[in-house]
Amino acid sequence: MITDPIDRTRFPVRDWSWTELRPSRDDMGVTETNFSVGNGYLGMRGTPAEGRETHTHGTFINGFHETWHIRHAEEAYGFAKTGQTIVLAPDSSVMKLYVDDEPLLINEADLISYERSLRFDTGQLTRDLVWRTPSGKRVKVSSRRMVSFTERHVAILSMEITLLDAEAPVVISSQVLNRQDGSDEYHVRADAMGEGFDPRKASRFTSRVLEPIIHRVGPGRRMLLGHRTMQSRMTLAVGVDHDLDFEGHAEINATTGKDSAKWVARLDARPGQTIRLTKSVAYHTSKGVPVPELADRCVRTLDRVKALGVDEIAARQRKFLDDFWSRADVEMVGQPALQQAVRWNLFQVLQASARAEQSGIPAKGVTGSGYEGHYFWDTEIYVLPFLTYTSPDTARNALRFRYQLLDDARRRAREMAQEGALFPWRTINGEEASAYYAAGTAQYHIDADIAFALCRYVEASGDDAFLLKEGAEILVETARMWADLGFWRHNGGRRFEIHGVTGPDEYTAVVNNNLFTNVMARYNLAKAAQTVRRLELTEPQAHAGLVTQLGLTDDEVAGWERAALAMYIPFDESLGIHPQDEHFLDREVWDLSETPPEKRPLLLHYHPLVIYRFQVIKQADVCMALFLQGDQFTMEEKRADFEYYDPITTGDSTLSAVVQSIVASEVGYHEMALDYFHHALYVDLADLHRNTVDGVHVASTGGLWATIVYGFAGLRDHHGTMTFDPRLPVDWAGIRFRLQLSGQTLAVTLDQDSIAFTNHGDDVIRVWVRESEVDVAGGQTRTVALDHQGDRLPGRLGNVPVVRQAQ
Amino acid sequence: MITDPIDRTRFPVRDWSWTELRPSRDDMGVTETNFSVGNGYLGMRGTPAEGRETHTHGTFINGFHETWHIRHAEEAYGFAKTGQTIVLAPDSSVMKLYVDDEPLLINEADLISYERSLRFDTGQLTRDLVWRTPSGKRVKVSSRRMVSFTERHVAILSMEITLLDAEAPVVISSQVLNRQDGSDEYHVRADAMGEGFDPRKASRFTSRVLEPIIHRVGPGRRMLLGHRTMQSRMTLAVGVDHDLDFEGHAEINATTGKDSAKWVARLDARPGQTIRLTKSVAYHTSKGVPVPELADRCVRTLDRVKALGVDEIAARQRKFLDDFWSRADVEMVGQPALQQAVRWNLFQVLQASARAEQSGIPAKGVTGSGYEGHYFWDTEIYVLPFLTYTSPDTARNALRFRYQLLDDARRRAREMAQEGALFPWRTINGEEASAYYAAGTAQYHIDADIAFALCRYVEASGDDAFLLKEGAEILVETARMWADLGFWRHNGGRRFEIHGVTGPDEYTAVVNNNLFTNVMARYNLAKAAQTVRRLELTEPQAHAGLVTQLGLTDDEVAGWERAALAMYIPFDESLGIHPQDEHFLDREVWDLSETPPEKRPLLLHYHPLVIYRFQVIKQADVCMALFLQGDQFTMEEKRADFEYYDPITTGDSTLSAVVQSIVASEVGYHEMALDYFHHALYVDLADLHRNTVDGVHVASTGGLWATIVYGFAGLRDHHGTMTFDPRLPVDWAGIRFRLQLSGQTLAVTLDQDSIAFTNHGDDVIRVWVRESEVDVAGGQTRTVALDHQGDRLPGRLGNVPVVRQAQ
Repeated sequence: MITDPIDRTRFPVRDWSWTELRPSRDDMGVTETNFSVGNGYLGMRGTPAEGRETHTHGTFINGFHETWHIRHAEEAYGFAKTGQTIVLAPDSSVMKLYVDDEPLLINEADLISYERSLRFDTGQLTRDLVWRTPSGKRVKVSSRRMVSFTERHVAILSMEITLLDAEAPVVISSQVLNRQDGSDEYHVRADAMGEGFDPRKASRFTSRVLEPIIHRVGPGRRMLLGHRTMQSRMTLAVGVDHDLDFEGHAEINATTGKDSAKWVARLDARPGQTIRLTKSVAYHTSKGVPVPELADRCVRTLDRVKALGVDEIAARQRKFLDDFWSRADVEMVGQPALQQAVRWNLFQVLQASARAEQSGIPAKGVTGSGYEGHYFWDTEIYVLPFLTYTSPDTARNALRFRYQLLDDARRRAREMAQEGALFPWRTINGEEASAYYAAGTAQYHIDADIAFALCRYVEASGDDAFLLKEGAEILVETARMWADLGFWRHNGGRRFEIHGVTGPDEYTAVVNNNLFTNVMARYNLAKAAQTVRRLELTEPQAHAGLVTQLGLTDDEVAGWERAALAMYIPFDESLGIHPQDEHFLDREVWDLSETPPEKRPLLLHYHPLVIYRFQVIKQADVCMALFLQGDQFTMEEKRADFEYYDPITTGDSTLSAVVQSIVASEVGYHEMALDYFHHALYVDLADLHRNTVDGVHVASTGGLWATIVYGFAGLRDHHGTMTFDPRLPVDWAGIRFRLQLSGQTLAVTLDQDSIAFTNHGDDVIRVWVRESEVDVAGGQTRTVALDHQGDRLPGRLGNVPVVRQAQ
Repeated sequence: MITDPIDRTRFPVRDWSWTELRPSRDDMGVTETNFSVGNGYLGMRGTPAEGRETHTHGTFINGFHETWHIRHAEEAYGFAKTGQTIVLAPDSSVMKLYVDDEPLLINEADLISYERSLRFDTGQLTRDLVWRTPSGKRVKVSSRRMVSFTERHVAILSMEITLLDAEAPVVISSQVLNRQDGSDEYHVRADAMGEGFDPRKASRFTSRVLEPIIHRVGPGRRMLLGHRTMQSRMTLAVGVDHDLDFEGHAEINATTGKDSAKWVARLDARPGQTIRLTKSVAYHTSKGVPVPELADRCVRTLDRVKALGVDEIAARQRKFLDDFWSRADVEMVGQPALQQAVRWNLFQVLQASARAEQSGIPAKGVTGSGYEGHYFWDTEIYVLPFLTYTSPDTARNALRFRYQLLDDARRRAREMAQEGALFPWRTINGEEASAYYAAGTAQYHIDADIAFALCRYVEASGDDAFLLKEGAEILVETARMWADLGFWRHNGGRRFEIHGVTGPDEYTAVVNNNLFTNVMARYNLAKAAQTVRRLELTEPQAHAGLVTQLGLTDDEVAGWERAALAMYIPFDESLGIHPQDEHFLDREVWDLSETPPEKRPLLLHYHPLVIYRFQVIKQADVCMALFLQGDQFTMEEKRADFEYYDPITTGDSTLSAVVQSIVASEVGYHEMALDYFHHALYVDLADLHRNTVDGVHVASTGGLWATIVYGFAGLRDHHGTMTFDPRLPVDWAGIRFRLQLSGQTLAVTLDQDSIAFTNHGDDVIRVWVRESEVDVAGGQTRTVALDHQGDRLPGRLGNVPVVRQAQ
């Protein structure tokens, strides 16, 4: 059991920040990730402004990627062709400081004091330190770094330097560096750290990626750099303004080269005097707009920043975050340590998504290059629940992004010999990029995941306009894919089966009738049919549009209904459980208790063929179905399934713990629910999966919200009906959170003996608490007494019977 | 139905040659393959000596390969790491001819006569033509090309030129060219032919492969070239002697460069005078011997050739082939066209295997670079039956080669988390090279295929020495692999199951309890146990060796026996057939009658996921089990299985038709048996699979022998018992062939109403004809009357019921 795996002498508990009191070489990569700042468009890892010793530099622009031809060792028809890899955007975080010509190097400096905080309230990364230079002079250095939520393209970095003891020459060298091509430090570093093979990482490029197009110094020493990616032909420009506040002799020089821009100030500083340097940075990127035009946009953005002033931008940042937390905060009554970690997680979801807009939400947000910056189902299933109920506009953007990929998905379906649309398992540009199809393209469930998230969004937000314009088309095309992928099997009865797919669990691949896939496909088919039927009655024009544009027929819709009704849901009578797939239970059971830690995660120590041969699970699969399609299963089934699958679940994916926690809560394994919650809570903060260096596990941060709201508060929202069946952990005093429902705010307060709802809007909001209907009128609070928090089953699950341990 | 798909005006029927009367640009790649000469070590495609316009140059040394790091688009533990690709050896076939400075270009020349023959009796490629030069002079040119069977490292090429009309200056430019690096003609050509993507081809190298080490002209203008491969560090030397027989003025010049050697003669030729040039070539290769030493070997080989004289080498070639045909010929009574094609096929097996010796037998022999020169199960299952019964020493070499790979196979088993040894699915150097594991490494059956071929060889040859020294060790280590791979499943009864493997059919991948795999594994386990038990009684010393060296215990052997007895053999009662794998029949049926020709072969037009989802078969799988383990099935089962599977078998692999023919013969579909036989017979001669350009389908050429001997003559040799249950096709007068049995020759004569056996040895040979035991004493002939040739079922099979056609 994990309770608090954090070294509190170094990372103290704070309400509104993640704070470090001591730098360390030991976990540089982890802290770089965990102190990242970003807005979903632009992200900067928490590398020190002074550079030099870092684990992995990284400034990322969501979706700014290079493409490469995927050369399969053995080629086959339909294999993914275009590799897509996020690249390092020119790094503007560099601000090197020299006093008496001695550089400040965080990991070597004699630091009298040091404190670094990622502030959830102000949206700033702050660092305050006092440095004793080699010659014994004390220097106070305060740095601030912010990626603006309100100005999508803007980052503001500042540094205040005060000599405390004696005068000294001070040099500040502020730079922009193309690190993608300028040095191989990036990859060499990872190798040098002695890290072995890990397929989840990528190191793709051996030749130049960013072609230099322009570089210039403009009026006011404004510096501009512009590049274009060699293959994908994406364009990028970055512009930088410097504002130096210093009275005294200063010599300033600004130069640019193909791959760098340097602004250097040489100052004669006196003690007590504060030198203030503010660096305003603007990034613009595009799929094809010429670089000079992007440079012009940078100029306009920087002009606006200048006009507003950085203080105003900081104030807007604060306001933006006040709004965010007023909707999204989850209060952990009386538990400051958990509170801090919960807020860190929620803040990460925000940083990954807030201004993603025309892009998807990468698996690592904008904090690292893990998974090559790709978009997965993580968005729809792990991130969108939180966004749907706290920032519905952001949720809408993410779904609109999928709609923009619909034509690509149609093409991919054709290539895969299917009708309708098949969304790519992983992508940036809309093309399938999963080069290992068994755990990639075979995950057809991505279609249903999108349909599911879409329906939930529409039900929660009441955004019918989205349903009419984009939603219905996605539903139709995904339903078509399912109707075509499955087939009618005549063995006694007629049933609809789906073969040759992979469910969420990537330790089991290419199977028949994966439970998760089948229940989600059934949902997709039924929802599509229902939507079309409803539009026919209520929105004849929209319906006519579908008929004309998509060639939709009544027969086709009826076919979806028949397929949904006849969908095969395998059930094993003897064990009383749902097989993960039709033949899952035929497999030999892998006894995880016999697999030593050095053989974990399995994927790094066993050939896929070996793993696939056993009953062993990477991540929640049936368990995920029990959650997402919970109204399709009885409590008895859920408990039996959970008891069977949990002991063979490795949790080798961070997508697992949050779902296991939710279902453990529901079926009564309250201690396990808490274990999994803690695991998810600290997965990055304590680097529990040992790969936080590659970026934040964004799905887990989103899922964490779900463990609280769906898990402990027991929310279920099937078909838009909001029910609560709470499971507050034994030792918790209470939790408070808010939900956005049809544009209104519903505040929820859960304690051990009651749950209360406050409607901050005007219209009645109806919820259910277990069997009771509760109507909460506008401005009203309704409190419902709770006489229990669900079943409380003792202990934790052991292992299922062992047949044999794999060699 | 295919009867004679050959254009007989161009390729006339001849008893002992494959002959071409007219060159053509249309099928250059095909004729290059079909007129290849080789001895299993050295091979030369049938490109014209004059070069210039060819489809694909190619001189190959079996096993002479370059390695490369396999970069998987998505990496995983245990994926094959080392790519291995056969490379082009320096090409010594070039002998350019100029008369009046006009080059002879076969495809453009005005040819008064032309005849090219691959001679099965002399082992020579001969070409005789009369050329009218642009200035109207007639020139007779006779070329000979031979790769010696008796001198493994030697090729002899010659050219005789006679001016028929008038004198003229004649230039002969004889060359050796490193075509691997010297020009990109090789690959450019294939692209220029408009051929699309085909995963079975490889074009790996973009940088230099052969590093030049030495080149020199020695005494007598002997030329030597030596290279080393850049990565695999294999070494090669080639030496060339020229012998010019010409009376008159001749100016000769010999030069070498890093990548070429040129011998040029300028002659003033008179009409009626014959110019004879003989080019003797020696190749030596090695895994690491320094190039200069190989060059010395070339010198010694050339000296010996010189001492022997090329006439003597030709005479020995003839003698070698006389011996071969006396053992291996299959006479097709009264059917000259079939006779010619049968001999071409058998000659190809010889050319692929005769002197392979320390190497395996590549899928394309030494006729092309298809499948990158790799060794597969083709050797054991398709080629070894023929070799075992006609050239047992060659069979022994092929099996010894596997023994040499045993340590690699042990390592690979460990990597795949298994005990014992797991042979690579495809390899040159012993390491697994199958980069697509689902149709590669997953074919664990390779272990049983090797065990099977080994046991058959020992039973047929009586070579107990091989069993004691190499065979038993292979049997033990493969049995160990199976015992460990499978597991005991407790569902009602106890049965032994094998999961997560791919059978021979590559259109169905990674399945549980593949019938073929299970019956072959059962055989492997039982034979290993039987062998150990027998050695314990009869060869205690050998047995003790196994115990000491391999740590073999009695318990372990008992475990193999139990596993073999309890091996799960799925059977579907309702259909009365064996499912290809446990869940094969759950799949949707692919209706091949609805798949247009332009969508075939399926692998070039459908993603593997699509293909795997259906009941559709690339190649004989259950059908193969019915043949190889025929004593384990009843005739009723065989017929039912054949009737079920044949209509869903695409035959997209050339490994299929021969097996389908054999089983069709057995179960009574005599017309289909003949269809499949014809298909196999002409697969390369008529380029039926449209990829003969890549080399001869060696497995099919070996399998063709099996269609006659096992199929039409009805031989079965389970556990060394030779039974005949003949199935002579209706219109055939008879067939004659010979078998080597324990060092003796048994001649078999099958006619419509009798089968006769002549024992050319001393000891009694016992065979069975159907239920009757027939003892044939040494020197004796026994004739058994036949009152039928098996059941003769009418017609051909149609398609099984259609559920739905794939899109």
